[in-house]
Amino acid sequence: MRDVAVLGVGLNKKWGELWEMSLRDIFVEAALNAFDDAAVDHIDSMYVGCMTGGMFASQEHLGSLMADYLGVKSIPVTRVESACASGGVAFRQGFIEVAAGVSDLVLVGGVEKMTDVSGDEATHALASAADMEYEGYQGITFPGLYALMARAHMHQFGTTREQLARVAVKNHKHGAMNPVAQFSFEVTLSDVLGSVLVADPLRLLDCSPITDGAAAAILCPLDMARKISKKPVVKVLASAQASDTIALHSRKDLTWLASTAKAAAGAYKMAGKGPHDLHVAELHDCFTIAEIMVLEALALVERGKGGQAAESGMTALGGKIPVNTSGGLKAKGHPVGATGVGQIVEIALQLRGEAGPRQVKGARVGLTQNMGGTGGSSVVHIFEAV
Amino acid sequence: MRDVAVLGVGLNKKWGELWEMSLRDIFVEAALNAFDDAAVDHIDSMYVGCMTGGMFASQEHLGSLMADYLGVKSIPVTRVESACASGGVAFRQGFIEVAAGVSDLVLVGGVEKMTDVSGDEATHALASAADMEYEGYQGITFPGLYALMARAHMHQFGTTREQLARVAVKNHKHGAMNPVAQFSFEVTLSDVLGSVLVADPLRLLDCSPITDGAAAAILCPLDMARKISKKPVVKVLASAQASDTIALHSRKDLTWLASTAKAAAGAYKMAGKGPHDLHVAELHDCFTIAEIMVLEALALVERGKGGQAAESGMTALGGKIPVNTSGGLKAKGHPVGATGVGQIVEIALQLRGEAGPRQVKGARVGLTQNMGGTGGSSVVHIFEAV
Repeated sequence: MRDVAVLGVGLNKKWGELWEMSLRDIFVEAALNAFDDAAVDHIDSMYVGCMTGGMFASQEHLGSLMADYLGVKSIPVTRVESACASGGVAFRQGFIEVAAGVSDLVLVGGVEKMTDVSGDEATHALASAADMEYEGYQGITFPGLYALMARAHMHQFGTTREQLARVAVKNHKHGAMNPVAQFSFEVTLSDVLGSVLVADPLRLLDCSPITDGAAAAILCPLDMARKISKKPVVKVLASAQASDTIALHSRKDLTWLASTAKAAAGAYKMAGKGPHDLHVAELHDCFTIAEIMVLEALALVERGKGGQAAESGMTALGGKIPVNTSGGLKAKGHPVGATGVGQIVEIALQLRGEAGPRQVKGARVGLTQNMGGTGGSSVVHIFEAV
Repeated sequence: MRDVAVLGVGLNKKWGELWEMSLRDIFVEAALNAFDDAAVDHIDSMYVGCMTGGMFASQEHLGSLMADYLGVKSIPVTRVESACASGGVAFRQGFIEVAAGVSDLVLVGGVEKMTDVSGDEATHALASAADMEYEGYQGITFPGLYALMARAHMHQFGTTREQLARVAVKNHKHGAMNPVAQFSFEVTLSDVLGSVLVADPLRLLDCSPITDGAAAAILCPLDMARKISKKPVVKVLASAQASDTIALHSRKDLTWLASTAKAAAGAYKMAGKGPHDLHVAELHDCFTIAEIMVLEALALVERGKGGQAAESGMTALGGKIPVNTSGGLKAKGHPVGATGVGQIVEIALQLRGEAGPRQVKGARVGLTQNMGGTGGSSVVHIFEAV
């Protein structure tokens, strides 16, 4: 297999409620920005990560649609879905294709247009990432599922309501420095603790929002990137993916993200790096409890200690391992199919030293972790500036 | 890249209206049959081709779901979508993963559960393979789109109404020999010509049905297959994929399937074979006109001569190049996400000499062609018994 690099990255201008743009418009804007950043004029192949074009926009066949509107029709284009991990999993397919030598220049984009349906419809569409014949049939949706995980974590490890809130405060603080972020403003601890209760113990400001947005990355062989890129070259050190039961009720332990732990172990092994080698990470904080549990599954903290991370400042900019400098899903927004690619865009910018006011000084190794549902699927990538 | 083989294949017992089985049940039945056929007890990775679990079954995150219910949770599992080409495109991803050396044993399954919604809802869900903001907004659905293509082909090349019907008669004759087929019975020319008009000139018996079904194939390196398989080894000679405009109105020529022609050219080159080397083929006959146009795009007949193929007997069992010995989408059924993998199952059986009464004598080289929408995406595979 060939070594692979991220040659260019792009986002659409602003994540949020983009009522004036359609699914295709958002995707094309991000993809063209990646073309500009990569300074290439063609691609050989493309992947589109999207969770549910069908339920949000009555549109499937997204590969053909996006190739057509991006002006690259005729090339192979494949849409990939793994719920909220669709973007990360699409990136992995692009990585494998370049590593295999099947293609040299592969664009991986992620997109979701979530605000053209009602809130109830959006909640139903998102619930399709859970087991709809059992979990969905009982009427539970994602805030409820993550609330169960949060309660179990609080019970088992003494994680506090305030510790959950600290994750949101930190990620909003980061997001306030990111002009693309849907919520580029800070919130206080009392804002979070006083926000409306959604599913006990989770409050509104513990939850990532409904977002329209897209992200794109162009991959190529490392040798090619070294030759043609005028920017620091971002090498893909590792790509690993794993699965778990789709339903929470089938797990032995509600507080452990087995798919993330397995993907992380695979990625650390492939990269020849451990958690202590990381300088920056983008993690899947769909709810505040998720960031806490992911920190543990990645072995960035000990089991049960995730709640202390944001509280101690360890995961803030300037801390030992800054997490979600982009603002994370919480503040940057969570257009589900785009999220995994958006995380990679942030890490590429960090490793190239282009993250502006939210730059992690001297960041050379970064990790992304993207997951679907309550962790039924997870994908972890590790990158290094070389 | 490593050479790749199809180690085992499986279908669920019967394609059709499976009201007593859910999406997951159908998939698992086919996948377990592929395990039995391959005589292996584990897989390293899995792909699931499905067009719209969301619109048909309110269920996305199909990778996690199917891994869970198949009893292989923890491995990487990825759902792939390219409308009615979802199965073929999923197979291509599995092929690339094995060829790259990322995994040794990869299961590729395709599935669709289409009969739990009303006919109107199914037609709407299928229309999401077209451009919903333009074609769909005007109210046109797939029978109408293919009717436009048929009319153009009749006008430009003199293709007749009877020639269209001959495709259905042939494929039902083949399907009558396939116990899995949804419609395992013959129809006559007058049955087709007298069936209800759907979208002029297409009648009910020109159209593939709404089907529940699943198909699965297990891939491995060729060397491994040679060692462990007790059956003739089916090598994947070529895999090629291409795209075209999603909307029919953006094409210069309604009678030419550019994505299929491009994928075929790529596949012939990769295989070192031409159309005259093929002994059997499974083509995407979602409507009778589609088989006619695909024959031309694959260069199995000259441009404009596709209508004469079924009429002359060339594409029937015993003819020069038997097409759709399984019964095709027309008679075997068209569970959209499963179709592309189902085609590969049929070709594997043919090349192993296990196709029973519909066996093509001495078949050693076979091709599958699977497409999405009106040809917005196409994928072509070529196989050889080695």
